[in-house]
Amino acid sequence: MKLDHGSLEDLCRGAAFLGTGGGGDPYIGRLMVEHAMAESGPVEIIDPSDVPDDALVIPTAMMGAPTVLVEKLPRGNEAVKSLRRLEQHLGKKAFATMPIEIGGINSTMPLVVGARLGLPVVDADGMGRAFPELQMETFAVYGVSGTPMVITNEYGDSTLIETHDNKMMEWIARGVAIRMGGAAYIAEYPMTGEEVKRTSVPNTMTLAIEIGRCIREARANHVNPFDALLELLPTTPYSFGKIIFRGKIIDMFRETRAGFAAGRAHIQGLDEWSGVMEIEIQNENLTARVDGQLKAIVPDLICIMDSETAEPITTETLRYGQRVTVMGVAVPPIMRSPEALALFGPVGFGIDEPFTPIEQMG
Amino acid sequence: MKLDHGSLEDLCRGAAFLGTGGGGDPYIGRLMVEHAMAESGPVEIIDPSDVPDDALVIPTAMMGAPTVLVEKLPRGNEAVKSLRRLEQHLGKKAFATMPIEIGGINSTMPLVVGARLGLPVVDADGMGRAFPELQMETFAVYGVSGTPMVITNEYGDSTLIETHDNKMMEWIARGVAIRMGGAAYIAEYPMTGEEVKRTSVPNTMTLAIEIGRCIREARANHVNPFDALLELLPTTPYSFGKIIFRGKIIDMFRETRAGFAAGRAHIQGLDEWSGVMEIEIQNENLTARVDGQLKAIVPDLICIMDSETAEPITTETLRYGQRVTVMGVAVPPIMRSPEALALFGPVGFGIDEPFTPIEQMG
Repeated sequence: MKLDHGSLEDLCRGAAFLGTGGGGDPYIGRLMVEHAMAESGPVEIIDPSDVPDDALVIPTAMMGAPTVLVEKLPRGNEAVKSLRRLEQHLGKKAFATMPIEIGGINSTMPLVVGARLGLPVVDADGMGRAFPELQMETFAVYGVSGTPMVITNEYGDSTLIETHDNKMMEWIARGVAIRMGGAAYIAEYPMTGEEVKRTSVPNTMTLAIEIGRCIREARANHVNPFDALLELLPTTPYSFGKIIFRGKIIDMFRETRAGFAAGRAHIQGLDEWSGVMEIEIQNENLTARVDGQLKAIVPDLICIMDSETAEPITTETLRYGQRVTVMGVAVPPIMRSPEALALFGPVGFGIDEPFTPIEQMG
Repeated sequence: MKLDHGSLEDLCRGAAFLGTGGGGDPYIGRLMVEHAMAESGPVEIIDPSDVPDDALVIPTAMMGAPTVLVEKLPRGNEAVKSLRRLEQHLGKKAFATMPIEIGGINSTMPLVVGARLGLPVVDADGMGRAFPELQMETFAVYGVSGTPMVITNEYGDSTLIETHDNKMMEWIARGVAIRMGGAAYIAEYPMTGEEVKRTSVPNTMTLAIEIGRCIREARANHVNPFDALLELLPTTPYSFGKIIFRGKIIDMFRETRAGFAAGRAHIQGLDEWSGVMEIEIQNENLTARVDGQLKAIVPDLICIMDSETAEPITTETLRYGQRVTVMGVAVPPIMRSPEALALFGPVGFGIDEPFTPIEQMG
């Protein structure tokens, strides 16, 4: 499908929902795609099944703290340069690019690259949500090497990284991203079409469009958008959702720690919701607890939305006084396998509790 | 000349002298060269004039905090891997390698690479002493780009860095070195034979051998080695030296700061020397003051030596109670030009004092 402006707006909203707070401000991402499409023409989104098995696909993304991104805006050609540099190293042209995660600006960054280079963007991603670290990708879970990878800044400085494992790639690249000012632009996990089909979370771009459209249409039709979402989810691979809290943000603590936007949000319950919910953040929302009791935990989605409009709120734009509704959502089975949970379940974040699916939470 | 074991010992001692405290423990460097020569045969040191103008020369070195190096020993093939990776990127074989600095282990690292790969080592370097940062090289002063450069760790993880200037190269590479555990191995400033001749400090390897031999022979002949050194220096491009203090180390403060071994040494004067000398350290000795009065300042050499044996002491092995003699030495004119002082004079270290040549110090 060719992406049009209406779908782009839906995509950004839906990706911010799936991004579970992370991936950076989708508004910036939308402006970048609109600018790129105005200059270079529309971008094509293709199904993973349309990628030849032996074609080269190079995912592209922003890497860094979303809190930095909103102040240090990209030029727009950084990720393009990373992809080109990686092509040069591999001695092969990319057939397509794709997102590494579905969330905020990182769903739209590949669209910018696609528009600029006339490359299609594969309708799939490597996280099925957003995660803060580069080894936390389904590509890695199912055996693809993240390197060679390239990271580029706004001056065109670039670094090509080759490591013996994906955790070391994250460690080195994070160090470079920090020294590039806290946000930089990457091309990583170069892979074949066969690997895309085997290791990615499929059709998350079109799902994001569907979710974004669902919220928009509910608003237009004066239907409760939360009800509309809870009706939509069971028809998708994200098969279960429930409201886990509603209230007012009474405290936000944030810091940039080791290159990540870390912090905690405290939400005082309103209406039928009593107690205080604490959300733990590392770029994304990791856990939600009410008065110490766990209500949702990574990798399931913890989506904080404006209580009036159901607009998803990314972590760097959370602030005191916002009225928010928190939804927990089940992720697809590919993201809940033992191998997947080992990389990006609670243990991947040093959280000393087992994963409990949102469906089984009290 | 073919390097033999006797010359190697002299070279290590002389390089530790010229290294003005930096470049890492020369003992480790000597063991590494002996091991490499035992396995792969002797190494050839060639004069810069013997390098064809269009030949490719790739300098190799250790990068990091010398305090880390003495605990995290190299495998021995890291710098080899960096050079090979850079050759692969450039699509051209190196004719020779050479030191980036003359000091401690970094005078011997290219000898290890040369022995392992059967490459000659150019008798020259890019600092004429040791400096803590990669942009502080005469190569940079006289217009050579430090990048593309490669940094490799003991696992074979490598990072190829390309930046728009040499200060940014240092900044990114330092970040990577820190994340590689505080010490890693580089190939940088790939250049032509013409550039070697135009931008390097020539014949510092053979000078180091000469200085090391001078100290050794003075000891053997029961001559005062300090007197012997002060007689030798005026016959070299390091044309002036003087004893600026003698005493006992009464306090050492050190920390690993931003990837460097930083600190201060306090030396209580003995015999005719009164007061306390303070030496400021960033990997190398930067300034020497007695009761606040400046006695020597970077880029001139500040050489701390054992008062009995005149053995040069690198900064990471300075310790309480050592009886030491401190010598100030003038560096060659190529290192004192306005362009050179802008990069590695006091201002390059944030020291708010002009450079005063050691010859003019009170």
